[in-house]
Amino acid sequence: MTKHLSGLTVALDADDTLWANEDHFRQTEADFLELLGPYCSGVATDDLASALLAIERERLPIYGFGVKGFTLSMIEAATTLSSGEVTNADITRILQLGKDLLQVPTTLLEGVEEAVAELADHYRLLLITKGDLRHQQMKIDESGLARYFESTHVVSDKSATEYTTLLAAKNIDPAEFVMVGNSLKSDVLPVIELGGIGIHIPYDLTWEVEVATAPQALDVPTLTRLAEVHPYLQHLEELNQ
Amino acid sequence: MTKHLSGLTVALDADDTLWANEDHFRQTEADFLELLGPYCSGVATDDLASALLAIERERLPIYGFGVKGFTLSMIEAATTLSSGEVTNADITRILQLGKDLLQVPTTLLEGVEEAVAELADHYRLLLITKGDLRHQQMKIDESGLARYFESTHVVSDKSATEYTTLLAAKNIDPAEFVMVGNSLKSDVLPVIELGGIGIHIPYDLTWEVEVATAPQALDVPTLTRLAEVHPYLQHLEELNQ
Repeated sequence: MTKHLSGLTVALDADDTLWANEDHFRQTEADFLELLGPYCSGVATDDLASALLAIERERLPIYGFGVKGFTLSMIEAATTLSSGEVTNADITRILQLGKDLLQVPTTLLEGVEEAVAELADHYRLLLITKGDLRHQQMKIDESGLARYFESTHVVSDKSATEYTTLLAAKNIDPAEFVMVGNSLKSDVLPVIELGGIGIHIPYDLTWEVEVATAPQALDVPTLTRLAEVHPYLQHLEELNQ
Repeated sequence: MTKHLSGLTVALDADDTLWANEDHFRQTEADFLELLGPYCSGVATDDLASALLAIERERLPIYGFGVKGFTLSMIEAATTLSSGEVTNADITRILQLGKDLLQVPTTLLEGVEEAVAELADHYRLLLITKGDLRHQQMKIDESGLARYFESTHVVSDKSATEYTTLLAAKNIDPAEFVMVGNSLKSDVLPVIELGGIGIHIPYDLTWEVEVATAPQALDVPTLTRLAEVHPYLQHLEELNQ
């Protein structure tokens, strides 16, 4: 009977908000850099990492986010940085790094299932994630969390425009929309820009492309774990009564 | 004033229904096989094509549909079929084939814009396509057709399950749902299975993974172009009155 007492719709990010993700990318990147090292003697590992990141950034507009584009970028980096010396055996290893990354088991962060269940009891609950469509859906399925969400959405980017389209399609007033996630750039700032509530739950690691700084004037609500979201929103609603 | 006179929702497939797609994949595959030929003397081009297809099929469950997975499969095929001899320069060329394929201009098939506009005047109109999320959205944007659709959906597969989820989310009765597309397997048969209307508009070329045969007992409505859909549905509705 407490279902949707509030008019708020709460949307949760997935990677590094519900389950670990960046750790796995970092491990794959470390394996890749180790493989590449012998071809690039005298070049610091940090410089190889920067060169890979530059290729990733350059390809984002056509590849979009996700493991498949990352794998293609690793292969491009390997041929470029090795001056054309990388062996077919190592290309095969890089392909395998990508396949392995696509098949890493989905591990929920601590306390997530309980927190999601509690949020589902009180709000319309959505999941909004970005990346490769198939991979994100595999992770959602594997997480066992799908049943808590009214709907789950894989988007190609989390810009104000994408949020506007999604909110319009779902008939959600931006002023009654809450987005919770680990990325200031993708989860928090665009939603605040639209007049909604963006809640930041930082994760230990942030991919460089996702790094952003909130304008100083902006007091971004920052929590340490998902279980704090419901009490925080209750408090907000009490203040507004 | 004629808007949505009918209770039907009409959904259109995109690749090879609204714009050319398979031709571009075939051209890319031909370029790839030509590049690979010198490494595989004595092997028929058809056999190389079959080996590539086998790799694509094997990787579909984790890569999903689309150009990025196809590019990764071409690279895997190149290293495998060349017995590890493919040069870095040729790996770079394969990466470029993929990038080019992602950037082929979106060319509408003849008469499509008028037909889509006419359908939008009479029905709730959706676009449902599968493939890489970013790439499909680029094509939808480029096509200029987005304004005719109530909503556009990129799905990871077009199975009866995916259609069921989408129809439930949009509150559409399967009995009042029409799907139009070039793939019997993806656009027509699963929708008929759900009790909807599947209309087949064959395209000259069909990717082997999409080839299907309708059960003999099934009388699948088959049209030659999109402009015939509205008259066909009007006729159906007259019969039902």
